[in-house]
Parts: sequence; structure tokens; C-alpha cells
Amino acid sequence: MHKPRLNCDMGESFGAWTMGMDEAVMPYVDCANIACGFHASDPSIMRRTVALAVNHDVMIGAHPAYPDLVGFGRRSMNCSGQEVEDMLLYQLGALEAICRAEGATLSYVKPHGALYNDMMRQPALLRAVMRAVAAFDASLPLMLLARRDNREAQSLAAEQGIHLWFEAFADRGYDADGYLLPRSQPGAVHPDAEQILAQALTFARGEPLAASDGSDLYLQADSLCVHGDNAESVAVVAHIRAAMDAL
Amino acid sequence: MHKPRLNCDMGESFGAWTMGMDEAVMPYVDCANIACGFHASDPSIMRRTVALAVNHDVMIGAHPAYPDLVGFGRRSMNCSGQEVEDMLLYQLGALEAICRAEGATLSYVKPHGALYNDMMRQPALLRAVMRAVAAFDASLPLMLLARRDNREAQSLAAEQGIHLWFEAFADRGYDADGYLLPRSQPGAVHPDAEQILAQALTFARGEPLAASDGSDLYLQADSLCVHGDNAESVAVVAHIRAAMDAL
Amino acid sequence: MHKPRLNCDMGESFGAWTMGMDEAVMPYVDCANIACGFHASDPSIMRRTVALAVNHDVMIGAHPAYPDLVGFGRRSMNCSGQEVEDMLLYQLGALEAICRAEGATLSYVKPHGALYNDMMRQPALLRAVMRAVAAFDASLPLMLLARRDNREAQSLAAEQGIHLWFEAFADRGYDADGYLLPRSQPGAVHPDAEQILAQALTFARGEPLAASDGSDLYLQADSLCVHGDNAESVAVVAHIRAAMDAL
Amino acid sequence: MHKPRLNCDMGESFGAWTMGMDEAVMPYVDCANIACGFHASDPSIMRRTVALAVNHDVMIGAHPAYPDLVGFGRRSMNCSGQEVEDMLLYQLGALEAICRAEGATLSYVKPHGALYNDMMRQPALLRAVMRAVAAFDASLPLMLLARRDNREAQSLAAEQGIHLWFEAFADRGYDADGYLLPRSQPGAVHPDAEQILAQALTFARGEPLAASDGSDLYLQADSLCVHGDNAESVAVVAHIRAAMDAL
Repeated sequence: MHKPRLNCDMGESFGAWTMGMDEAVMPYVDCANIACGFHASDPSIMRRTVALAVNHDVMIGAHPAYPDLVGFGRRSMNCSGQEVEDMLLYQLGALEAICRAEGATLSYVKPHGALYNDMMRQPALLRAVMRAVAAFDASLPLMLLARRDNREAQSLAAEQGIHLWFEAFADRGYDADGYLLPRSQPGAVHPDAEQILAQALTFARGEPLAASDGSDLYLQADSLCVHGDNAESVAVVAHIRAAMDAL
Repeated sequence: MHKPRLNCDMGESFGAWTMGMDEAVMPYVDCANIACGFHASDPSIMRRTVALAVNHDVMIGAHPAYPDLVGFGRRSMNCSGQEVEDMLLYQLGALEAICRAEGATLSYVKPHGALYNDMMRQPALLRAVMRAVAAFDASLPLMLLARRDNREAQSLAAEQGIHLWFEAFADRGYDADGYLLPRSQPGAVHPDAEQILAQALTFARGEPLAASDGSDLYLQADSLCVHGDNAESVAVVAHIRAAMDAL
Repeated sequence: MHKPRLNCDMGESFGAWTMGMDEAVMPYVDCANIACGFHASDPSIMRRTVALAVNHDVMIGAHPAYPDLVGFGRRSMNCSGQEVEDMLLYQLGALEAICRAEGATLSYVKPHGALYNDMMRQPALLRAVMRAVAAFDASLPLMLLARRDNREAQSLAAEQGIHLWFEAFADRGYDADGYLLPRSQPGAVHPDAEQILAQALTFARGEPLAASDGSDLYLQADSLCVHGDNAESVAVVAHIRAAMDAL
Repeated sequence: MHKPRLNCDMGESFGAWTMGMDEAVMPYVDCANIACGFHASDPSIMRRTVALAVNHDVMIGAHPAYPDLVGFGRRSMNCSGQEVEDMLLYQLGALEAICRAEGATLSYVKPHGALYNDMMRQPALLRAVMRAVAAFDASLPLMLLARRDNREAQSLAAEQGIHLWFEAFADRGYDADGYLLPRSQPGAVHPDAEQILAQALTFARGEPLAASDGSDLYLQADSLCVHGDNAESVAVVAHIRAAMDAL
């Protein structure tokens, strides 16, 4: 059995503003997706977040984004592939320097928000992201959304000479292609911890979940995305952690 | 004889705005101080500037600054030492990643504008800058202003385990302590190419120049700061280059 | 005969960076579209630009944009209608305050770049722009692209209780619907001053131009958009001005 | 007796980040100092905050700042008087436009953070702030720190033709000149609600408080600055409100 690692967005405070319960959730995760200053965070918050990850022996991933602080990187921007490639290099390097100062290393890359969604839908953009990772450090896996059919992403990754980590969501419903159901749709977000835990274990056991059309959906879940926004979601993460450890 | 290297601020365009004649001046210099996105530049301009430096076999230095695009990093900001250390790490890493993508390496660090001036006057800030360089890569020299007495800077550098490069200005008058005369003062800026060239050669020969009080001023000029703002200043750089090569 | 006013983007410098030949072109235009700090400009540049327009008795229009300095407001951003409405209010007010300090008033609103293009294609976004204008000052005309059929825009404007000014381009080719030909297409940009001048006079005389499919295209040209980017384009504007005055 | 109005910083959230308990504290205050986007807030948050103030019939003040989001406007920046004047005009206008859309009006101006502190110490900067207020709307009072001797500020205000509102702090200790004691000093921050309430009533009754040197300090408290950061501080504001109403 292949236990999926738990990954969580971290370091999304900015200046005087706090977001997320990083200290509370860090003990339960394997991978910290650390914001790089374009959608959230600043150099000092990045540094404190890296130090926190180091203290808990958590793998550090870069969480680069479109340059849109006020929109938290959630608004799609019509950037060229070259712009995306260059802004990723910038953010990866910035975080790596801060890791170095804390005796840590970068372990993977997971784009944020609208950039993540756009790259899942636009192969040219995914290729630009991959070019950045390949140029920066081809040994760093790129984390992206596991779907029913990952062949296109895998083919692009092979072309660029990089590795992929696929992630799945324990708290979300899926359509038949393995895309997350839009939040407006019934079944998009699992309402209780029980259901989330059950889906996490489904992934961990390599079993299929039921897509929205009822079909069996097998997803390659190298990692599960969890959330540390509030006390409730942190509690869910603690449960998932315990269940994973008990497998 | 120790020929000073010519260093020039580069890559100070931003988005759709152009500044400086980088392509014209690059052939004549040894060191390109490349802006890192806080006072000027953006990831794509950084990348093009690094590529240009590589093409001309010019050493690449990081030119980090306070976070003040609209003020071009020229306004002193009351940042803490920790903030300065962290923002430098961020900028150094960002530029290094872009160098890596272009097959280049960083060779030194020279802070920009108000940060440069502030660190020359405030030892606590200079120490913060040095801590960033030491944590990032202690083999990278930090470039700062040569003065009559550099012992304090040298002592701080020894404490942090980093190297210093001292730079001098061929186009500026100096006071007796080796600080640049304020631009409001007579003799602060040399009006013609002849005088600039003469002062450059004075530095190159290790001879003293006359400070504003008439005293002999010996400056350790590992590098000379030159300017590529316009056609006239580029022509001056070409002259200095030729004179240096003829020594 | 209804002579179209000449409008030109102005005040698109930013901090230490200069863009456009505002002083050279201001004497020839009727309307200055003044950037409001989101895609270009800053408070001090806005003030100098307003003062320049006042000196030349030129009408001042607000030129608001998406919040994207590094992309110069040219990249479409997926903002909600509410976000667009609020960011327009913010920019209109900012410019109006600066007008007030210079004894001037705002005369119209013309969105910039990607926001302009997006509102021409998305009625919901156009309505958001109109809501901002209506809430700010319903007597200010909104300038937008004249097309063959402007009824949808006119109907939305009537709904919001605002006025429209339609603008046309003397230097661009049009398709049959009255959209500008993409720059990648032959005939998209008129190569010489003669042709630009001829098309300006066509608009001024209320005559049709030939669309790309050869059909007659009548456009309601309350204003012509001209450019002050460089000496060449300023010379073209001077010619158009002289020709208009001679009508 | 002249009851001081209660003023509170509001609208200091930014994008996806929340700060302050605006909804909880709004019912208890007279004056909302609303951030204008330079140290905090964005157009949509400004709009919601203005609407909230309108609902509670609270006077709206502009709370302009240095352009330093990541530093929350708390870091002194070496801006010129002209820059400060222009950036204030920009922020005042932006907020006024949003007020207009909500059927509200601006009632006063209170600079934020480092700009507030700098103007209290530098007459040239205070004059620049006053020039902005005078040019924008000379009927708007400028709120500043009440000190033992306010004659210099009053003389500058008379020169610029504007009014002043003086504010005092119920939760802070004062030195003999009427400056707030630095937070590092004993007695700088009152630890409990009783003491804060007592000092508020001292101001309301026009009685002197004891400065740090034991001298009687009379302060002209047109307004008291209160805080809505957390539940505890909101509770204090509710107490002060009740005590004021009972006078």
C-alpha cells in the first residue's frame, strides 16, 4: 500500500495580516505548500514558515502564483507562457534562498489557485510551468490534480524531463473525468469529517471512489490536499493523520 | 597594478517601461548590477538582462533594494534588520534562479539606492545585509562604498565571514572622509568626460585623489561604478573601458 | 458636420519611468485619457499630467484599468463585476481629487487596455463599468469603441442613465462588425500617415470606410483615438489636428 | 461639557485577509477612520466599510497612509512634501468616490501610522498634509494628536485655512509634552479597562491627567482614539461608550 502524503497550504499570511493556523496544523502534515509572495506571504513570513516546517520535519514545497495579492491569486490572468515561466523561476528561487538560510531544501512545486486551475486546463501553460521547474531543478516533482486520465500531463512531463506528484482531495466530490465538482453543485464539498475521512482512506487503499455519475473513479493520489484554515479543518486533518498512521 | 572592474546598474526597466541603455553599455563593463524586482525590474526583464550579461561574458551581481517601485528604491524606509535580511534573501534567490535558467551564476551583491546609503551609515543595517549574504552564499562578495577608513565595514564582514568589494565613483567629488559630496554642493558631479576619465585612471593607478578639503584621499577601488542611462554616459563608459584596457 | 474630438492616452509614466511624449502631443488633442495608478501613473504624475492638460485647455478623462502595473493593464483578469465597479470608483475619485487641486474637472471616462476590451465583449462587465460611472457622476460620458451596431451598449447605457461617446481609430483596419482587426492580420495597422489622415477625414465627414470584407462601414466617431508614444506618432497627430481644423 | 467623539480605525482588511472587528465595534463609535488602500484595504473593502458606517450613522474619516502594504504603513518613508500631498489627494478622492456611491460623505481626515507620527514631528510634512486637505476640501477637519502645546499645528492650520480636531488616547500614558510614552516604557499602555475608562472620563470632563513626570497635563480631546482589534478591546469601547452617554 502507498500512503498518500498530506499537503497543506501554508505561509499565506501577509504583512500584518494573519491567515491560516499554520502552527496548529503543521504537526499533522507531510508537505507544506509555502506561498512565495505573489498571492500571499512576504520574505519574513516565508522565513518563519520555513522554520516552522523544519521544526516539524515537514517537506517544503513552493506554492507560486499569479502576481495578484489583492485577489489572493484566485483570479485568472491572461499571462503568456514566458511570463509564467519567468515568474515561477523568480518565486522558486526566492523561497529556495529562504530555505537555505534555514538549513532546509525545497522538495516539490505546487502552483496556487487560478494558476493551478489554468495549467490543468491549458497544456501550453502547463508546459510553461514545467519548463520553469525543469530549468530550476528537474529533480523537483510538480504536484498537480490527479484525474481519471493523466496521460497528457505525464507526456508533457516526460518531454520536459520532470516528475509528477498527483494529488487528490478527500473533502470534495469528483465528476467522471476526475475534475472537482464546482462548489455550486450538490455534492461538491463533503459536509462532515466522517465522509472526508472515508474518502481519504479510499485513496490510501487505492480503491475507487464514486464519481458524480456513479462510475468508479480510480485516482493516483500521491498526496492528499488538506486545509488548516480554522480549528475545525485542523481537527479533520488530525483525524486523517491518525487514520493514515493506523493503516 | 590592480585594474578596477567597471560595474553598472542594469535591468532597471519595469513591465512596459524602459530605463537605461543596457544593450549599448553591456559590451564595456565587467559587472552588471541586476535589479531584483523590488525597486525595478520584473521576472521577464531579469531574465533578458541575465541573458544579455551572459552573451557579453559580464559578471552578474544582485542589486537588491527596499520594496518601493514607485519611489525606485530611492526613499529610505524604516525597515528592521530582520526585514532587510529576509528581503535580501528573497531577492538574491529570485535572481539566482533566473541565472540558473540561463546557465549563469551570481558573482556578487550590491544593494541599491536608499538601502545602499542607509547601510553605509547604519552598522546594524550593514550587519543585516551581511547576514543575508552570509546565509545565502558566503563566497559572494558584498560591494560597498570605498571610504578613507573601511575598517568598520571590514570588521563586520570578518565577523560574518564574507568578503567585500569596494567601489569608487569616477564622476563624483569626495569629502575628506571618502563620502560622495551631496549633489547640491559644487564639485559633486564632474561635468565632463575628461575629468571623469582622469579620476578613473587615478583609481586604476592606486593614486590619491583630492578630497573637497584638498587632502589626499586614497580609496580602495576594486570596482568603478559607471552609468548607462543615456548615449552620453555610455560614451563615457566606452572611453573609460578603452583607457583601462590600454593601461 | 460633426468633428470628432482627438483623444490620447496620457500620464502613463510611473515613478522614475517615462512613457509617452505628453508635452509634445498635448497641444494637438482635445481629450486626455489620464491613467489612474492601476496600470500606470502615480499620484504625482497624475497631478503633473492634469496640470499639463489644464495649461492646454484639454478635456480630462479618467483612464481606469485592472490592477496590473507590471502587465500595464493589458492582461485580462477574471474580476467580478462588483470588483470592477469598486475599482473604477476608486480610480475615478482619485483622479477627480487631483483635478480639484489643479482647478480642473473630470469630463469623461475611458477604460484602459484589457478592461476596455473585456467590457466590449462582456455585457456584464460593461454594465459594471456603467454602474460605477452612474454612481460616481451620471453626467460623465463613457467612451467606448464604435461598432457597426451599438444598440446593446446604448441600451445598457439607457438602463444605467449614462451617456456614451463612441471612438474610432484612424490608424486601424476594421472587420465587418466594426471591431479592430487583430494586429496579426494584414491591414490591421495603417503603415503611413497619408492613410491614417485619410481615414480620420472619412470619420470626420461621416462617410463610410471599407471594412475588411469590402462592405461599407459607418461608425459613429464622436472621438478619434490618437497616440503620443513617439515623435512619429506625434507628427501624425499634428497632421490630423491641422486637417480637422481646416474642415 | 464637550464630549469627545470616539474614533476607531476601520476597513483595515485587505483582499482575502481580515483585520479588526469592524461590525462589532461600529455600533459604539462616532467616527470611522477608513483605510484608503495604501496601508490596508482595497476598493471593495472600502465600499463595504463605508456601507457599514452609513448603517450605523457613523461619521466617515479618510485614513490615508504611506504606500506600504507589506509594512501596514508603519514604516517611516522618506517621501517629499509634494509626494505626500499628492498621495493624500489620491487617497481622499478614492474614498470620497466610494462614499458617494453609498450616499455618504467624508467628514474628516486622519493620517495613519508612520505618516501620522512623522507629521507630528516634521512641520514640513504636516504642512504638506494640510495642503492636501485644503486643496481637496478645506471644510474637512484634520485630526491630529493633542499635545500640551498645539500652537504650532494651529498656526499651520490657520495658514492653510483648515480646521483641526485633536485626539487623545484613553489607553496610553503621556509624557510632559503630551506625547505618548513609547511602548517600551513603563506606564505606556494601560493594562486594564478600569484605568482606560477613568482616563476617558478625565478627558471628557476637561480635567488634567498626570503626565509621566507627575505634572498636570490638559489635553484638548475633541476625539478619543479607540480600538476594535479584538473582542477585549471592543468590550472596552462599549464601556467607554456607555460611560460617555451617561455623562
